[in-house]
Amino acid sequence: MKDKLRINKIGGNIIDSPPLLTKFLADFNQVEGKKILVHGGGKIATDFASQMGIEAKMVEGRRITDDPTLDIVTMVYAGLINKRIIAQLQAVGCNAIGLSGADGNSIRAIKRPVQTIDYGWVGDLLNDSVNTDTLSTFLENGLTPVFSAITHDGNGQLFNTNADTIASCIAIALSDSYSVSLLYCFEKKGVLKDINDEQSLVHEIREEDFIPLQEEGVVAGGMIPKLHNAFDAINRGVKEVLIGQASDLTLLDENRFGTRIMK
Amino acid sequence: MKDKLRINKIGGNIIDSPPLLTKFLADFNQVEGKKILVHGGGKIATDFASQMGIEAKMVEGRRITDDPTLDIVTMVYAGLINKRIIAQLQAVGCNAIGLSGADGNSIRAIKRPVQTIDYGWVGDLLNDSVNTDTLSTFLENGLTPVFSAITHDGNGQLFNTNADTIASCIAIALSDSYSVSLLYCFEKKGVLKDINDEQSLVHEIREEDFIPLQEEGVVAGGMIPKLHNAFDAINRGVKEVLIGQASDLTLLDENRFGTRIMK
Repeated sequence: MKDKLRINKIGGNIIDSPPLLTKFLADFNQVEGKKILVHGGGKIATDFASQMGIEAKMVEGRRITDDPTLDIVTMVYAGLINKRIIAQLQAVGCNAIGLSGADGNSIRAIKRPVQTIDYGWVGDLLNDSVNTDTLSTFLENGLTPVFSAITHDGNGQLFNTNADTIASCIAIALSDSYSVSLLYCFEKKGVLKDINDEQSLVHEIREEDFIPLQEEGVVAGGMIPKLHNAFDAINRGVKEVLIGQASDLTLLDENRFGTRIMK
Repeated sequence: MKDKLRINKIGGNIIDSPPLLTKFLADFNQVEGKKILVHGGGKIATDFASQMGIEAKMVEGRRITDDPTLDIVTMVYAGLINKRIIAQLQAVGCNAIGLSGADGNSIRAIKRPVQTIDYGWVGDLLNDSVNTDTLSTFLENGLTPVFSAITHDGNGQLFNTNADTIASCIAIALSDSYSVSLLYCFEKKGVLKDINDEQSLVHEIREEDFIPLQEEGVVAGGMIPKLHNAFDAINRGVKEVLIGQASDLTLLDENRFGTRIMK
C-alpha cells in the first residue's frame, strides 16, 4: 500500500487575503500524513513592480517575463510570500520547508520555446522535470515542501513558471511512490455551468465533457489550462484530482468538495 | 572520527560583484565533503528600498528593521540573492538548497530585547537556536544548505539577523557531530595591523591580544562583532576559525589564508 500524499495548490485569491491565508494554512496543517503546498503569486508582485516603476511588458496581450520582472517574481514569490507562509506554517506546528525548483534541483525546466511570442524567462516543464528523490527525502523526514512557482534550467537561469503546472507535474511524478490527491484551490466553488451562479457546480467532469463545455463557453479563460493540467494528472497516475474553493476543504471527507476530475 | 564540515560566510563585497560571486561559488563547489554557505545582504536591498521610496530608519545612528524594511530584506536576501546563488551552485554541480531559519525550523531566534534602542524585527540567537537534526538530514543526504540571514521566532514572525552570528551559531551547534572549519570571507585579507596596508596581516590572533588591539584602534568598526563571533566559535568547539578574503581561499591548504583565530 502506498502512503497517501496530499498536494494542494493555492492561488492569488488566498495569498492576497491574510485572513483567508491564515485559515487555509491552519486547515492545511490539519491534513494528516504527507503533504506538499504549491502557491502562485497573487497581486503583490504586480504592486511591487508598479511601486518600482517596472511596467508589465505585454506582447499580443500576453505578459512577458523580462529581466526586471524575473527579479521581482523571484523576490516576491520565492522570498516574501514563500517565507511568510513557512513562518505561519511553523507557527501552527507544520514543519514546512520553502523551495524553488532550484533548491535541491527539485524542479528543472526549459525556457518556453519561441513560436509566435517570446515569453522571456518563462519555464516549461518536461516529463522528467521533478526530482522525486529529493522530494521523497523531504517527505520521509517529516518535512512539508512548500513550492513557489520559480524553477531553474540547471545552468544558472531562473524561470517564472505556471504554478498549476508545477502542482500537476509534482503530483504525476510522485504517483509511482505515493497515492496522490491533487487539489486546486481557486476563487470559485469549482467548474460552474453558469459562472455567476455558485449553485451550478459541476460535481464531476470527464475529458469528453470538456470539449463541449469549452465550445459552449461554460469553461473559459484561466479555467482551460487549469483543467488541462487536471486531466493530465488524472490520466497519468494521480489518484484523485479536485478543483474548488479553499473554504470548502472541510467538505472533502463528505465528498462534497468542488469538481472531481474523472478519468 | 568526525566528518569534516566547512562553513563559509560571505559578505556584501562578494554578493554585490557578479564576477567575484561566480568565482567564489566555483571555488566553494571544489571544497570536498560537507559544506554550508551563509550569505549576508549587500547593497541590493538598500538599492531596492530606495527605488521603492522606503527610507532607512535610523535611531541613534543604528539601522532599524521596521515592517517595510523586513519585507525588503526577506524578498532580497531569502528570495533574489539566495535563489540566484542556488541556481549558480546547481549550474556548477553543487546540490545546494536555499534556506531561511524558518525553513525546516532550522534557526529560531528571539526579537532583540529593547534596552536603549528598539531595533525592530532583528533576531538574536540563543544557544539552542540551531536545529541540528534538520541540518544533519540535509548534509547526510548530499545537500549543501545555503542560508540567507532571515530567521523566525516559531510564532510566525520573521527576523533580520546578523549573518556572521548565524555562521558562528551553526558552526558551534554542529561541532558535536562534525569537525567544523568556519571561514569568514570579507573585503580585507584578514585582521590588519594597519588597515591601509594589506601586507600588515595578523596571521594569528588570540582573545588576549584582542583587547589591546581594540584599545589601539587596530581592530575597529564591523571587525569587532565579527571577532567576537569568531572567538565564540573557537571557544565553543569549532575546530578552526579563519577570517580573510575570498580570493585567497586557494591559500588555505598552505595555511596562508587570512587570520587564524586561536584558542
